Amino acid sequence: MAARLLRSSLRMSGGRCALRSPPAARFSHSGEEKRLETPSAEKLTDIGTRRIFSSEHDIFRESVRKFFQEEVIPHHAEWEKAGEVSRELWEKAGKQGLLGVNIAKHHGGIGGDLYSAAIMWEEHDLQGIRTNAKRDGSDWILNGSKVFISNGQLSDIVIVVAITNREAHSPAHGISLFLVENGMKGFIKGRKLHKMGLKAQDTAELFFEDVRLPASALLGEENKGFYHLMQELPQERLLIAEMGLSASEFMFEETRNYVRQRKAFGKTVAHLQTVQHKLAELKTHICVTRAFVDSCLQLHEKKRLDSATAAMAKYWASELQNTVAYDCVQLHGAWGYMWEYPITKAYVDARAQPIYGGTNEIMKELIAREIIRDK
Amino acid sequence: MAARLLRSSLRMSGGRCALRSPPAARFSHSGEEKRLETPSAEKLTDIGTRRIFSSEHDIFRESVRKFFQEEVIPHHAEWEKAGEVSRELWEKAGKQGLLGVNIAKHHGGIGGDLYSAAIMWEEHDLQGIRTNAKRDGSDWILNGSKVFISNGQLSDIVIVVAITNREAHSPAHGISLFLVENGMKGFIKGRKLHKMGLKAQDTAELFFEDVRLPASALLGEENKGFYHLMQELPQERLLIAEMGLSASEFMFEETRNYVRQRKAFGKTVAHLQTVQHKLAELKTHICVTRAFVDSCLQLHEKKRLDSATAAMAKYWASELQNTVAYDCVQLHGAWGYMWEYPITKAYVDARAQPIYGGTNEIMKELIAREIIRDK
Amino acid sequence: MAARLLRSSLRMSGGRCALRSPPAARFSHSGEEKRLETPSAEKLTDIGTRRIFSSEHDIFRESVRKFFQEEVIPHHAEWEKAGEVSRELWEKAGKQGLLGVNIAKHHGGIGGDLYSAAIMWEEHDLQGIRTNAKRDGSDWILNGSKVFISNGQLSDIVIVVAITNREAHSPAHGISLFLVENGMKGFIKGRKLHKMGLKAQDTAELFFEDVRLPASALLGEENKGFYHLMQELPQERLLIAEMGLSASEFMFEETRNYVRQRKAFGKTVAHLQTVQHKLAELKTHICVTRAFVDSCLQLHEKKRLDSATAAMAKYWASELQNTVAYDCVQLHGAWGYMWEYPITKAYVDARAQPIYGGTNEIMKELIAREIIRDK
Amino acid sequence: MAARLLRSSLRMSGGRCALRSPPAARFSHSGEEKRLETPSAEKLTDIGTRRIFSSEHDIFRESVRKFFQEEVIPHHAEWEKAGEVSRELWEKAGKQGLLGVNIAKHHGGIGGDLYSAAIMWEEHDLQGIRTNAKRDGSDWILNGSKVFISNGQLSDIVIVVAITNREAHSPAHGISLFLVENGMKGFIKGRKLHKMGLKAQDTAELFFEDVRLPASALLGEENKGFYHLMQELPQERLLIAEMGLSASEFMFEETRNYVRQRKAFGKTVAHLQTVQHKLAELKTHICVTRAFVDSCLQLHEKKRLDSATAAMAKYWASELQNTVAYDCVQLHGAWGYMWEYPITKAYVDARAQPIYGGTNEIMKELIAREIIRDK
Repeated sequence: MAARLLRSSLRMSGGRCALRSPPAARFSHSGEEKRLETPSAEKLTDIGTRRIFSSEHDIFRESVRKFFQEEVIPHHAEWEKAGEVSRELWEKAGKQGLLGVNIAKHHGGIGGDLYSAAIMWEEHDLQGIRTNAKRDGSDWILNGSKVFISNGQLSDIVIVVAITNREAHSPAHGISLFLVENGMKGFIKGRKLHKMGLKAQDTAELFFEDVRLPASALLGEENKGFYHLMQELPQERLLIAEMGLSASEFMFEETRNYVRQRKAFGKTVAHLQTVQHKLAELKTHICVTRAFVDSCLQLHEKKRLDSATAAMAKYWASELQNTVAYDCVQLHGAWGYMWEYPITKAYVDARAQPIYGGTNEIMKELIAREIIRDK
Repeated sequence: MAARLLRSSLRMSGGRCALRSPPAARFSHSGEEKRLETPSAEKLTDIGTRRIFSSEHDIFRESVRKFFQEEVIPHHAEWEKAGEVSRELWEKAGKQGLLGVNIAKHHGGIGGDLYSAAIMWEEHDLQGIRTNAKRDGSDWILNGSKVFISNGQLSDIVIVVAITNREAHSPAHGISLFLVENGMKGFIKGRKLHKMGLKAQDTAELFFEDVRLPASALLGEENKGFYHLMQELPQERLLIAEMGLSASEFMFEETRNYVRQRKAFGKTVAHLQTVQHKLAELKTHICVTRAFVDSCLQLHEKKRLDSATAAMAKYWASELQNTVAYDCVQLHGAWGYMWEYPITKAYVDARAQPIYGGTNEIMKELIAREIIRDK
Repeated sequence: MAARLLRSSLRMSGGRCALRSPPAARFSHSGEEKRLETPSAEKLTDIGTRRIFSSEHDIFRESVRKFFQEEVIPHHAEWEKAGEVSRELWEKAGKQGLLGVNIAKHHGGIGGDLYSAAIMWEEHDLQGIRTNAKRDGSDWILNGSKVFISNGQLSDIVIVVAITNREAHSPAHGISLFLVENGMKGFIKGRKLHKMGLKAQDTAELFFEDVRLPASALLGEENKGFYHLMQELPQERLLIAEMGLSASEFMFEETRNYVRQRKAFGKTVAHLQTVQHKLAELKTHICVTRAFVDSCLQLHEKKRLDSATAAMAKYWASELQNTVAYDCVQLHGAWGYMWEYPITKAYVDARAQPIYGGTNEIMKELIAREIIRDK
Repeated sequence: MAARLLRSSLRMSGGRCALRSPPAARFSHSGEEKRLETPSAEKLTDIGTRRIFSSEHDIFRESVRKFFQEEVIPHHAEWEKAGEVSRELWEKAGKQGLLGVNIAKHHGGIGGDLYSAAIMWEEHDLQGIRTNAKRDGSDWILNGSKVFISNGQLSDIVIVVAITNREAHSPAHGISLFLVENGMKGFIKGRKLHKMGLKAQDTAELFFEDVRLPASALLGEENKGFYHLMQELPQERLLIAEMGLSASEFMFEETRNYVRQRKAFGKTVAHLQTVQHKLAELKTHICVTRAFVDSCLQLHEKKRLDSATAAMAKYWASELQNTVAYDCVQLHGAWGYMWEYPITKAYVDARAQPIYGGTNEIMKELIAREIIRDK
């Protein structure tokens, strides 16, 4: 989760996006009713808005934003070329307490002292798991492979979903989670995949060939992997929704800025009625989504976010993000196609979101299941 | 407002829609965190959900729903033919305390003892006001006309927006509000207009020919009509949003019900994957909007709902309503085209919403104005 | 077919729509390359355009349009109230040679001397046929019922699809077509259904209770009904596409007219940039569709229109029609909701088209079948 | 034009796209009515279809496709890295007669003996021309700059739009076209721009600092540049439409292939009903557009393609392309995000099309101008 959190932060920070951290457990929300909601804020990226946050959150957000402006943005272009961020970044982030912010409550002793880890969600649907673990005395022997592992190259520890009971009457009853560490014999990292966007973040294939794991590598209970995942997936999906929405807010402000400065026919582009209505539509779409995602964040804080609601947030916000990206590129004209512009990166980054974390089609399956089942 | 409230109630009740009253001032919201939010509720029309309401609201909603089921639904078809509801309905509603629920705080002494009144919002472009009032001693002489007055036929009192100062440097500084009563000399009600839908609700043209009004007919201050309206319009638009969203929730549940019963190829229609995904999309769209509208209701309760935010709610929810209506008719197949089915009425009723209360294009102008203005 | 042709003509004529007849068999197209295609024509409803027509077609179209202006439009409001057109209309149309234009080539001796007939297409998926016919000597005994029969009340003859062999290994091999005449014992016409739109056209339920039919009532070959239908359905669907597209062209021109006259803020509505872009989008959508439908008409004339292509035309054009209707109502403002305006009727009429003739979802099944089957 | 033609060929060929050349002037179309139209063809990329082509076109297309498979595809990845194609490609293409196919009729002696040239269309708002040419004796002195010049680095000759009469009452009456050759003093090529996609095609800035041009460098007549452009722009836009549509057809076939092979839940992805309907929608959208673009190609061949019709084709087809690209990426799942897959490149390439050649918003202005002008 830490990796994902940082990754999302990194993604959002590449010159582009203010971090909107999920409500950290140690801050209670303010109940402060004078804070502006998003539609009324001067800018969608303003600090100090939204009732679900307190002034303590504002201070935290301020420091995070500063960190990204100083430690991330200046190096992002080189990381894009390298295809991964530097280890130094993770270490600095760890020192400043930006990693593992909300890990403790989810994974107990796991998160606290790791500065780099990746959780590999078996996101689209568990039937496709190609990794298995067999007991050998008290140890486990792991075999199989995985593709599309974010930060797979850089991570020190990965969490692997493996089949531990092939005879279970459904996959949900026969899978377990394991921690696999860098350097274990038989744990091989494949090539980095060349992606459309998200270029400073590596995506890799991992291979497991007779990797021997001690009993302590089992995470949670044997054959209960599905239930552990079920508890994590809503948070994972909410995080994707949050990333998509924050990116949308960022793109909107970038574009508003652009059209208010750019001249055409002797006036600014912002003077054109069609541009104004387009901005009104985008802002409305964003603000409506913000209300929903904030409400999901509140539910999540109270551990009441269910699977279908999280699926709604993920599907809806990632589609929003792509809609906003498409229109904002268009409003930038030819500059929207040039890599120098943040909007261009934001456009290709956006395209991953309806796919990973479970495709949006799988989200609709999860939502529909609740709708049509007999109650 | 009372008329509009009842009208909205009536519209929503015509065999079709559970009333979702705006939060009545006398009920404080519960802060009860165990109430289910819409996405997790069994049905979108369940009573007892949404954190912005308390159990007192639930009891009120229960009684309102009962009133409509007993007093409205059995008579709706005949009112459609008549083109207006019966006066008896208004009287019964008044006796049960369903009128004027939230009038006092807005119009002081006006609302309390009226059982039937209509407020005529000068919804699109104040520039189009074709009514004027001139002083004659302490009286006013009113001349002009208005079209598209909802419940114009049935109402006892209408509020008229009239120009009182033609020299004002903008229309906003030269209009006032007047109360005009049934039976005043020169106050003529024109024909009922034949509409696409909303058939039990009359829409009329009103004519004012030298109508003499006493000084007491002036509502608020002279030439301050624009500011009085500005205070009311956000509420008016939020109400339209609420109506559109409630109707959407109703249509969704009607359709879910239908596809779970209707057979095709030996299975229920609900078994088809395309139907399931469509329902998932509609429910997500509705739930996302519910979060936003509920958040607007909260702002409104605290008198913090601004014009642009209300415009977002109105535009977004009324488009949602038409999207939902279109898809739900389609899911009903040929029955969706037959007047017996609530979905059919809901479809034609929905089409008015992006138009009245200010067209959605005007809403976008209001939203855009805030986006592009220099701050 | 005659009924459908006239019906479509009637629908399109209700003060609303220029008839665009399918290319009559007796006219060869001109090959005249100087005729304007739709995008370049002054108006989308101009006579004398499109290369698939000749000057002979223009004269025919002229006379048809005159007929509707004189014989249909003045009476349409009363027919709406009656829920059906008058028999006199059909007789006049027959005398002028407007019925049965292209019947001969499809149904041999059937069409020529009928002035009123209805073909009841078993539009959605033949599995739902609830009528059966059993031999009794050389006669057939017909039992069952049908809903949603257009012009069912007024027609003298209907064509019924009935199951004649329950043991056939698929419904496609066990159905036949029968002609059933008004007045036959056991042939009962149910109530007229109250519809959302299409109000001058009756839609009825028909009941068959031991109706005795002579051998000559069998249309085509026994158990070959499916194949006869398969030959007719592409034409039926192309006609719906043509109706939807013609209606779209009519609505566009009505609306262009309206916005060029209607004033707002001291200018015509047509001066607003958002209105201009909306019109540009609608016209493009229409012109693109016109090219496709004209190409289908050419294929159909050469008997080369296949089922999937016709399904595309039906699905695409009927969705276009609803998109155009929605936007054109909006551009009319509140007048777009008043029954006096042709656009209002066009809006509710449009909603039937994605449903009948096989729902658009069934069209997609037909199209998809070709896409995914192994070849 | 040659550069653009090859460029488009190159773009479409990058392992991705069958060339669909515009109808070469030397081939008359067949009038062959037995050729399949697109909706009925086995594959959208089949050779031998569409009535506007003859068997001679088929042979030409076959040879072009072979050329790209042998000479382009194997080298494309390296050209992407280089940011431009090799000069050798242009030379080989020239030797095989693939360049200048339809140049003669447009530019007389210009095209024939050039193997590499670029036409720089002053596509958006001629008002933005920042280059001017002044007479100096019989010579011209050119000053200014240009961005977004496709193939600007590689081209030997560019055509520059320059202001030659500042006093003209509109820009349309004061611009001229000039040929500028590589190596001329003061003609400086700026950096290659880093783009979202189209990576094997260079896009550059060009600078002109007191470039001395002989009288013969004037292309066409002095101050008639606007009219020369007006004649070329419809073809340019039609070409973009054709490129967008061909790319859509290619993407569709790639995706159909993918979903018919890819397994999920023990079946191919193509078995899912939602996937089938999505493919049906995409194919319909493509086939409808094909009919329109083919009809435009026919008009263009007869020199009857007007500006508004070409604008429709450009706007519509480039939006289609992006819609298809988005959905096809989604249907590929995570592989749709990986650069190895043609669909990924096609996605980022597509995004340029609604922008260059005049943004789609400018297309709508051109279309709308015809709609609202008084005739």
